[in-house]
Amino acid sequence: MISIEDYIRDIQDFPKMGVVFKDITPLLANHLAIERCLELLLEKVGDEKIDKVVGIESRGFFFGMLLAQKLNAGFVPIRKPGKLPYETHKEPYLLEYGMDVLEMHEDAIKKGERILIHDDVLATGGTARAACNLVKKCGGEIVQCNFIMQIDFLCGNEKLKSYDVASVLNY
Amino acid sequence: MISIEDYIRDIQDFPKMGVVFKDITPLLANHLAIERCLELLLEKVGDEKIDKVVGIESRGFFFGMLLAQKLNAGFVPIRKPGKLPYETHKEPYLLEYGMDVLEMHEDAIKKGERILIHDDVLATGGTARAACNLVKKCGGEIVQCNFIMQIDFLCGNEKLKSYDVASVLNY
Repeated sequence: MISIEDYIRDIQDFPKMGVVFKDITPLLANHLAIERCLELLLEKVGDEKIDKVVGIESRGFFFGMLLAQKLNAGFVPIRKPGKLPYETHKEPYLLEYGMDVLEMHEDAIKKGERILIHDDVLATGGTARAACNLVKKCGGEIVQCNFIMQIDFLCGNEKLKSYDVASVLNY
Repeated sequence: MISIEDYIRDIQDFPKMGVVFKDITPLLANHLAIERCLELLLEKVGDEKIDKVVGIESRGFFFGMLLAQKLNAGFVPIRKPGKLPYETHKEPYLLEYGMDVLEMHEDAIKKGERILIHDDVLATGGTARAACNLVKKCGGEIVQCNFIMQIDFLCGNEKLKSYDVASVLNY
């Protein structure tokens, strides 16, 4: 049995000094590791019915698409400003210094649709919470915030207290 | 039978005046359209053995991951500068005004591996050619450059003459 931890690489001082970045590209490069990771993510979803999977730019796109396909759901990308071509809802979130914004198409989610939010890593939870707010603006019901891994000491789940938060790995 | 053209939306004047942008988000939002598009992309690959699918940031990540999974291949992201955390090969390409660069991890592809390059749209071919050059730097063998659609009047295939170029739709 493949252990997906073995396919996640620590990169010291990326994107800046003092940060240890969890690199999933070795996992993506191996199709058995992809299968195993997908299986574990799906176990977290259980038998919940999902209408749309929302993936956060851009590492949330990888397994977000695979989850959507396996769950017979549509896929909705949440992107950085200016990337989505149609009318968008916008949601600011805090960075260490300053703010940034995430966008989602206004017509991406219908009222009452059951939504799985996916990203690779839950760190401080800023982008995940912005994603939740975008989904709520469209009237979507958030079934789960779903991650490959969660960095415990950053307490991202504190920002997602109203939601079911699931991750395959904890660091 | 679903016709995937019906799920591609024309956006006038995006990202700038005079350009008609082909928006695939309606296609992504519908799981039957995802299935049909994937089926058509796979038909283009035929029974070629593929070791790795290379997807170009970021719209090439969507179907790139699905293709990798169906082909029992690994997935390799090609990204904009500064996004990949490990050592990278870099390849410049021409924009209308100026240059930009694409990066791929140096260890992403082994010599002799059989590669499928995927992106959503073949336009002028600049990024696709840069992707081919990155794959060649690692010694990969390019089996096909595979797109959902090709914008014929931009003649992107002229830049990819040495390769098999396949697209599901032509505009």
